[in-house]
Amino acid sequence: MPFINIKLTGGSEAPSKEQKAELIKGVTEVMVRVLNKNPASTVVIIEEIDMDNYGLGGESITERRKK
Amino acid sequence: MPFINIKLTGGSEAPSKEQKAELIKGVTEVMVRVLNKNPASTVVIIEEIDMDNYGLGGESITERRKK
Amino acid sequence: MPFINIKLTGGSEAPSKEQKAELIKGVTEVMVRVLNKNPASTVVIIEEIDMDNYGLGGESITERRKK
Amino acid sequence: MPFINIKLTGGSEAPSKEQKAELIKGVTEVMVRVLNKNPASTVVIIEEIDMDNYGLGGESITERRKK
Amino acid sequence: MPFINIKLTGGSEAPSKEQKAELIKGVTEVMVRVLNKNPASTVVIIEEIDMDNYGLGGESITERRKK
Amino acid sequence: MPFINIKLTGGSEAPSKEQKAELIKGVTEVMVRVLNKNPASTVVIIEEIDMDNYGLGGESITERRKK
Repeated sequence: MPFINIKLTGGSEAPSKEQKAELIKGVTEVMVRVLNKNPASTVVIIEEIDMDNYGLGGESITERRKK
Repeated sequence: MPFINIKLTGGSEAPSKEQKAELIKGVTEVMVRVLNKNPASTVVIIEEIDMDNYGLGGESITERRKK
Repeated sequence: MPFINIKLTGGSEAPSKEQKAELIKGVTEVMVRVLNKNPASTVVIIEEIDMDNYGLGGESITERRKK
Repeated sequence: MPFINIKLTGGSEAPSKEQKAELIKGVTEVMVRVLNKNPASTVVIIEEIDMDNYGLGGESITERRKK
Repeated sequence: MPFINIKLTGGSEAPSKEQKAELIKGVTEVMVRVLNKNPASTVVIIEEIDMDNYGLGGESITERRKK
Repeated sequence: MPFINIKLTGGSEAPSKEQKAELIKGVTEVMVRVLNKNPASTVVIIEEIDMDNYGLGGESITERRKK
């Protein structure tokens, strides 16, 4: 029952429904392959963060994308 | 000052305002009863996760609900 | 499959094994009672934080406990 | 590459775009000043929580603000 | 710069150093493959949770493993 | 009552007790200065992550530090 929380940029960079399904599938597979975890109790949560709310290097991603 | 973060499915499964108040009250009471924590500094945060963004068994909850 | 993460002070204030079991049981019961969630897929994680690492009011809990 | 996650009340108390930029800048500066961390790999994520979803003292902030 | 936080059971079930490296590599590859994310700013954090502190179905994993 | 969670490398890179106090103080000050938040209910939690458990660019920090 590992718990995997993915935080990534939302808005115009938000993953599509299909990509989210791929992320859930792919990350779960890694847990099964590497640690033989039970997929049935492997929880994956994807959180889309607005680019104004996501900072790197002291700046928001919104600002960084302008450069 | 314990911090309790609850992540659960949103959308059509999102808790109502009253249910959220019940969750906050109930979880705080457990902290007080079991550990004698000060409710005044017990923080509870509920995060509603879209069912496309919530995975179990390698699939999104959206897909699982279809079965 | 709600996910509940509890962060609380560790060290001399760490909950005992029995208290942790009570927390897990109590918090799961609140999810079942209020939202009729399936306990079998309700995940609870307790994280014990050293009092030097836990701050409130701009001070560590270690410092606050001295007052 | 420290990771800083800020959860705060949203809705009518949500920070403005400029305030979010200030938070990202300010928190990154603290990491650099105190620990000489590399700002280029310092990640800051701000999450705005609805006041119905944010509890303190066993009550939602929505309720507390009415008093 | 996605952020991936993996919480899993520690103690006797803790992943080895090699397995952790595999998890970091594998999860980063999923982010690159599915979303074309930049691996250089993809952060993965693995947190090992004591089995007394990890609950499922209202019980600690320590108790569940005894059955 | 904002909640700030700081995850950073532990082990040989772990902050000292004084540095943790500085981080708590500094981050709380940013919340007060930028958003006029009440320091008395501003919670800061610092989590030290083993360098084997912290990944960037698909590698653990332990491996990156060797280069």
